Amino acid sequence: MKEEETILSYEQRVQVRFSEVDSIRSVWHGHYVQYLEDAREAFGREYGLGYMTIFENGYFAPVYELNLHYRRMATVDDVLLVKIIYCKTIGGKIVFHYVVTRQSDNELILTAESVQLFTTKEGEFSPLEPEFYKQWKQKWNIL
Amino acid sequence: MKEEETILSYEQRVQVRFSEVDSIRSVWHGHYVQYLEDAREAFGREYGLGYMTIFENGYFAPVYELNLHYRRMATVDDVLLVKIIYCKTIGGKIVFHYVVTRQSDNELILTAESVQLFTTKEGEFSPLEPEFYKQWKQKWNIL
Amino acid sequence: MKEEETILSYEQRVQVRFSEVDSIRSVWHGHYVQYLEDAREAFGREYGLGYMTIFENGYFAPVYELNLHYRRMATVDDVLLVKIIYCKTIGGKIVFHYVVTRQSDNELILTAESVQLFTTKEGEFSPLEPEFYKQWKQKWNIL
Amino acid sequence: MKEEETILSYEQRVQVRFSEVDSIRSVWHGHYVQYLEDAREAFGREYGLGYMTIFENGYFAPVYELNLHYRRMATVDDVLLVKIIYCKTIGGKIVFHYVVTRQSDNELILTAESVQLFTTKEGEFSPLEPEFYKQWKQKWNIL
Repeated sequence: MKEEETILSYEQRVQVRFSEVDSIRSVWHGHYVQYLEDAREAFGREYGLGYMTIFENGYFAPVYELNLHYRRMATVDDVLLVKIIYCKTIGGKIVFHYVVTRQSDNELILTAESVQLFTTKEGEFSPLEPEFYKQWKQKWNIL
Repeated sequence: MKEEETILSYEQRVQVRFSEVDSIRSVWHGHYVQYLEDAREAFGREYGLGYMTIFENGYFAPVYELNLHYRRMATVDDVLLVKIIYCKTIGGKIVFHYVVTRQSDNELILTAESVQLFTTKEGEFSPLEPEFYKQWKQKWNIL
Repeated sequence: MKEEETILSYEQRVQVRFSEVDSIRSVWHGHYVQYLEDAREAFGREYGLGYMTIFENGYFAPVYELNLHYRRMATVDDVLLVKIIYCKTIGGKIVFHYVVTRQSDNELILTAESVQLFTTKEGEFSPLEPEFYKQWKQKWNIL
Repeated sequence: MKEEETILSYEQRVQVRFSEVDSIRSVWHGHYVQYLEDAREAFGREYGLGYMTIFENGYFAPVYELNLHYRRMATVDDVLLVKIIYCKTIGGKIVFHYVVTRQSDNELILTAESVQLFTTKEGEFSPLEPEFYKQWKQKWNIL
């Protein structure tokens, strides 16, 4: 009998700000990097994998890869829903997928993926999976 | 006899700002999107393919894909060199590659690629290659 | 018999982001300008005086004066409460006061004032109080 | 015989970026805080009073007051000249005045003042003028 797999995800609501909209009335493409981090920080608070938790265990988890696929433009006063999904991977990586939609009409705005690696506080990449991360995976039934 | 191929590129100097460095003393990963756009705008001014030129011809050229590969962290007072290279492609696309290095020790910090598509001012994707872009390619001997 | 005066105010909650904290672990001073605008936009949505409302009536309301008094530093994961208070003034001005405190210990972080003037869409300062603004004041019993 | 007074100043060139211009085609008011800091950092490099110098002497110099007087709007592709002037004051304060003009037509865009105080690395305000700052003033003949 197959055990049901845990899917960890979170949906972060983002209200587009006046200052984030450029002269062609669409959200400047760089701001989505912040929206994704907003979702990642909210995920971290929800599931106990925030920057400070990682830091207190002796590590940083800098972004190593970030791919952004822009599909439609959002504009001022839009409310965006940023869905972040934790992706199972082997070893010392944190991988997230993101789907950003507009609340009013459910249109797809952007999809994205990020990969984070662990480094020591001296900035050296960690070849081994940190012990605290193994335990975190076990806690959430991620095998 | 083979005609020599034109390679269009530009190198933009970026002085890292105090405000761009995060609490672990490295440049926050989102700021690189701005550094790449700085290089793209400088390229546009150099070769006549800036936002305003595109706009005056009746188009926008929003970013459609952006892939960022972070390799080393930069820190406060670093000077970064952002090399932007125009990539030949067929049809109505603008594709750039980017290589970011640190001036002081020539270390590789980031590589990236961007794809821009053309839209009309109403925001509709343009299926055909705009005439002004064809002429721009001819002018720079891009076949 | 003295009619009671209407005080229009709003309290906006701001979660400090990782990217907003600088290398000395305090919120970079420039980000407060955004926090104040977040509160101003929320006030606008609450009381019907948002950017789009002003725009649809034929005006812009650019910031003309902004004074910021920093009193304590905030840091990562702090939750800030940005209280915005509308100040009665004569003529075509919008004046707000702001008080920013930290939720956890109620410490004062910043106070600020902003003055906005009205311009036409061509960017000319409007010497007269716009009619829609007079009506807005009447609606909220601001004499 | 009157000794001539030293006036320490610096002029920083700022190229307005596409992403800094808002939906009414003028530079978003918050970005000027960064432009002023750009000038302050350049001044620091020029005269030996940068963030890192202050830090290495055991202090921070956070902004305590910032007043911004917006006079005209700047727009995309404008080049701005940010003049920063060091103001003599008694005690442990760093005071700067700023004048921002547009290069093309010399129009006044903004004036501003900033006050910085010294804190220890633990964030306590320093009641005394730091020794290194006294020496810096002497070096530049500021009495």
